[in-house]
Amino acid sequence: MRLNRNVAAFIRTARVAHLATADAAGQPLVIPICFAFDGKEFLSAIDEKPKRTTKLKRLRNIAENPKVSLIVDHYDENWQRLAYVLIRGTAKILLRGKRHQRGVELLRRKYFQYRRMAIDERPMIVITPNQFKSWGDL
Amino acid sequence: MRLNRNVAAFIRTARVAHLATADAAGQPLVIPICFAFDGKEFLSAIDEKPKRTTKLKRLRNIAENPKVSLIVDHYDENWQRLAYVLIRGTAKILLRGKRHQRGVELLRRKYFQYRRMAIDERPMIVITPNQFKSWGDL
Repeated sequence: MRLNRNVAAFIRTARVAHLATADAAGQPLVIPICFAFDGKEFLSAIDEKPKRTTKLKRLRNIAENPKVSLIVDHYDENWQRLAYVLIRGTAKILLRGKRHQRGVELLRRKYFQYRRMAIDERPMIVITPNQFKSWGDL
Repeated sequence: MRLNRNVAAFIRTARVAHLATADAAGQPLVIPICFAFDGKEFLSAIDEKPKRTTKLKRLRNIAENPKVSLIVDHYDENWQRLAYVLIRGTAKILLRGKRHQRGVELLRRKYFQYRRMAIDERPMIVITPNQFKSWGDL
């Protein structure tokens, strides 16, 4: 999928996105996430304590139903300046391996906050987009 | 449902929230919304042109599956300052009537931008919460 330059820049510079998952019963869940985008996939670390991660609803939802929706958006009181990029895709959880390691590197490059956190030992959500929709003042 | 004062203030002062819906096939959709909270329900106007509203995916999702998730959150580079209030609930669409009118009033009071928009002639999403979960520096 080839992205328009403005869309790609809007995604890359955003510090936070919002991820929606849904469980097998169709109950949606939305959470704010920090993420890295390598041009193909979105990577997001789980930074909770390992013991608790298996209980995280977002991970259970992805295991039950890999369909997700992700939005990167900008709010402004001047509504002519509102903008978003809406992504639909599928998610999976990585526990280790090369893509996991690459994700850790990208996230630590983007967020100084991760440099002192043990995200290399935590699960990572990888989202493969299958649709991008952009709107507004990008 | 009685809310802690900080939680209620955090919700009331937020200018934007993120709403997740899901269709009958379990595909989630997340969108940013402007909203008013009257202490019991969340109200969000549809400001697209009337002709297009019947096509809006969020409205079709709610018709198929009323379960929704809503988040009000604050991002800060100091991650000690991150905060959110996560709401689970059910949504429905109002086309007219007293609650619709009350929603228009609340939204116009909160957002000057709506004062010149014909939201009184557009559908409104009403979310009845059944769970609040707050986290972080509220």
